[in-house]
Order: sequence, then C-alpha cells, then structure tokens
Amino acid sequence: MPTYKLTYFDFHGRGELARLIFAIAGVPYEDERIKQEQWPELKSKMPNGQMPVLEVDGKMYSQSLAIARYLANEFNLMGNTNLENLRIDEVCGTIQDLIGCYVKCVIRNKEKDETLFAEFREKDIPQYLKIFESFLNENENGVFVGNKVRSLCIYTLVCYSCTVLNSINLIRIQFSFYYPRP
Amino acid sequence: MPTYKLTYFDFHGRGELARLIFAIAGVPYEDERIKQEQWPELKSKMPNGQMPVLEVDGKMYSQSLAIARYLANEFNLMGNTNLENLRIDEVCGTIQDLIGCYVKCVIRNKEKDETLFAEFREKDIPQYLKIFESFLNENENGVFVGNKVRSLCIYTLVCYSCTVLNSINLIRIQFSFYYPRP
Repeated sequence: MPTYKLTYFDFHGRGELARLIFAIAGVPYEDERIKQEQWPELKSKMPNGQMPVLEVDGKMYSQSLAIARYLANEFNLMGNTNLENLRIDEVCGTIQDLIGCYVKCVIRNKEKDETLFAEFREKDIPQYLKIFESFLNENENGVFVGNKVRSLCIYTLVCYSCTVLNSINLIRIQFSFYYPRP
Repeated sequence: MPTYKLTYFDFHGRGELARLIFAIAGVPYEDERIKQEQWPELKSKMPNGQMPVLEVDGKMYSQSLAIARYLANEFNLMGNTNLENLRIDEVCGTIQDLIGCYVKCVIRNKEKDETLFAEFREKDIPQYLKIFESFLNENENGVFVGNKVRSLCIYTLVCYSCTVLNSINLIRIQFSFYYPRP
C-alpha cells in the first residue's frame, strides 16, 4: 500500500471527506493540519494554490472530490457497477451544487445580506433536500445506491451536512423537518 | 449495449462534453436538443431540474461530469489506473473551477461590470492556464495523463475552452499567448 499524507486546514470543510474515508476504511495516513497563519506561505507550494492536497508516495494531488473518489475506489467504497458509480457521482455533484449555493449565500455574504441568507434557507435547502429525497425514493433500500450504506455519496452528504449544520443554526430546523433523526 | 438518449439545449455548454465523447467513441445515441421556450415546461420533469440528462435504457441521470465520467468509463476513455483517474478528475475539477469563475464574472454579470470582466480576463484565465501548464509539465509526454491523448480531461478542456472562447473575444488573446497554435 502507498503512503498517504493529507494536508488541509484544522476544520471540516472540503478536507473532512477524505479524513472520513480513511477512518471508515481503517487506513493509516498522515493528517497534516494547517493553521490559517501558515497558509499564505504554503499556498504557492500547493498544486492548485488550494487544499486539500493528498500526497500518494510523495506526489501531490488536489481537488477534494477527485481525492475522495480515488480513495473510495482504493478502499472499495464506490458502487458495484459503472452505472452505480454514475448515480454516486450524480448525488455527489448535486451536493457540490448545494455547497456552491452555501458559499454564495453564506460564506461570501460579507455584508450579512439577509435576502441571501433567506434564499439559502427557504429556497435552496428545501429544493435540494427534495432532490435527495427523490434519489432515495428511486431506490427501495432507503440508501442512495445499491443495497449497501458504504458508498461515497453517503459520506459526502454526512460530511458536508455537518459543515453546513455547524455553520448556520437555522438550517437545523429544515434538516430536522426532513430528517427527524439525523 | 444499452440505449442512450442525451437531452440538452441546442448549444455547447455543459452538454457538449457527453456529445463529444459519444462522437469520439463512435457510439450511437439520441441527441435531443431542447429549445429555450420548451424549457419551463420540461424543467420539472428533469431529475435535478437541470440539463444535461442522460437516459440509460430509459432511466434518467443528471450532472454533466458524472455523465461524462460514466460514458468515458464505458468507452475506455479514462486512465489505465486509479491513480491516472485521480489526475484526470483533478484536471476536470480544476476546469470546473475555471468555469465557475466564468459563470460568476461573465454569465451572471448582468450589469456588464467591467471590473468583473477584467478579473476573469487578467486574473482567473492566466492563473488557471499556469495551473494547466504545470500539470502538463509534470508529464513528459505533453498530455495531462499517461501516454495517450484519449483521456476525459482533454475533451473537457477542449469542450469548455470552446464554450469560453466563443463567448469572450478578448480571451483569445490570452489563449493564443499560452498556446500559439490552439
């Protein structure tokens, strides 16, 4: 097995998904956590000027979902067929779209514009939860793909939901409405 | 082989990548092109309220890169190893990030704010082209991944670059600077 090193900030964000996959798979890795004040100097050394970065035997790779998909494939956490993987990628892509709304309305909402907060809370969140519900309804087992709970999209949803839930108290109401026992 | 139907608007955008992959692979599919005036009625029938949508034996799937990755896997256009696929996904994700900048600065720039146009032209484009160049420099064959030109990321770059190039005349200057013979 190659040696793995993951470099990211010391919070959930886009790096937590890879950490979660390592934890579920029980695979050892170096979990390098960067302080905000270290970042300006480190940024130019990263392939994309971004984190997370995964090193596989010392070679660097960026892009959180690319890293997650690679690890999920290595540790048998993707689907059983290419068509199952299409559904997994579809769900993960939809979660990424929701995160894009979150970044636009919350993270980049420096002026604390209540209209943007409300757009995320009252339009985006219910709309995306309905989409996730429709994906679940298509599969009689109550999980997104196939008949096992081990797929990448579950971890993606759990991971990014935690990030969102931790950041905006009000969204807990919406989530608890759709998922009474999260 | 299953039957394929691709539904998207009658322009390049996010649907062209799947069309390009079908064309390269020489695989027949139904190429359903939707007029703008048909979209409001059709939107609610699409899984995510979005296009492109790929039907595989009548079952619908959304998310352009999920669809492209599925088709590339079906038609042997991904890498030879999981690690090559990580690099392909990394390049595709980086291209998606550039498209995100394009959407923010150009497509959603309804007020024709010159500062945003300039940000895309003078900051984003050179920055991302340098990243793509560094990916290319890491691989001695002059292509992004491995030793063949057939990988998904090439098509992604070609496809989305065409979309961008078609939309903003000024960007041609930047591209021709970095790639004298595009």
